[in-house]
Amino acid sequence: MTPIEIALQEARDAAARGEVPVGAVVTDAAGRVLGRAGNRVEQDHDASAHAEMLALRQAAAALGSPRLPGCTLTVTLEPCPMCAQAASFFRIRRVVFGAYDPKGGGVEHGARIYAAPSCHHAPEVVGGVREGECATLLREFFAALRR
Amino acid sequence: MTPIEIALQEARDAAARGEVPVGAVVTDAAGRVLGRAGNRVEQDHDASAHAEMLALRQAAAALGSPRLPGCTLTVTLEPCPMCAQAASFFRIRRVVFGAYDPKGGGVEHGARIYAAPSCHHAPEVVGGVREGECATLLREFFAALRR
Repeated sequence: MTPIEIALQEARDAAARGEVPVGAVVTDAAGRVLGRAGNRVEQDHDASAHAEMLALRQAAAALGSPRLPGCTLTVTLEPCPMCAQAASFFRIRRVVFGAYDPKGGGVEHGARIYAAPSCHHAPEVVGGVREGECATLLREFFAALRR
Repeated sequence: MTPIEIALQEARDAAARGEVPVGAVVTDAAGRVLGRAGNRVEQDHDASAHAEMLALRQAAAALGSPRLPGCTLTVTLEPCPMCAQAASFFRIRRVVFGAYDPKGGGVEHGARIYAAPSCHHAPEVVGGVREGECATLLREFFAALRR
């Protein structure tokens, strides 16, 4: 499976747990999976338990280092400001995401974390990968909630 | 001890561990301490292990809820964008901080997380509490590193 396929699988698993369906994976320069997770906000009683935060922390624990140079964070949704800033602190080289998030995103929207002059480390960004599938998962989840 | 005194104690303990001396505490409406922590980035191999994130997660675990309405986050340094956004997700009512951080702060500087139109929950903010002591701790820590 490609990283975005792993992230999509994590997102589907999150939906099955009643969590907002976002999934993330951290891979190293060789493509090895260092961390993967879906949202666990409700399950873990932790508002910071976004898929990206969990995958980043898992990857750092796997390497025994708070920095992940050369690594890629792949996620189904544009990261929020919290997760975008965390990816910078972890020295992630590349952020790849699926659906754009005009309301909550912090990369291409809102706070635009990596564009701030005070941002010490701005990862390369690739948005819109498998955008349709990633967005559909979220749309169907919220439509079902409103039913 | 007042919340800022607890945060200062956590910051001093962080310095003693070789961590950037920032400390944080979460208190409920009655002033009860629900979580307290200093930076643990190096020790935990976790670039997201800022004092605020740890104190927020501890408090949420103590209450068994991802939301902390009515609670105050008190921290020795202006929160960065990651921590400012996390405090919003945790529905913190009030953020009190000591030293201002023109370079890394995300509340009164840089991303100004709570001023963004997309920010659903903006805590009340009080900055500059025991500012001198909070800033001195950081200045002395970095001066010692350069020696």
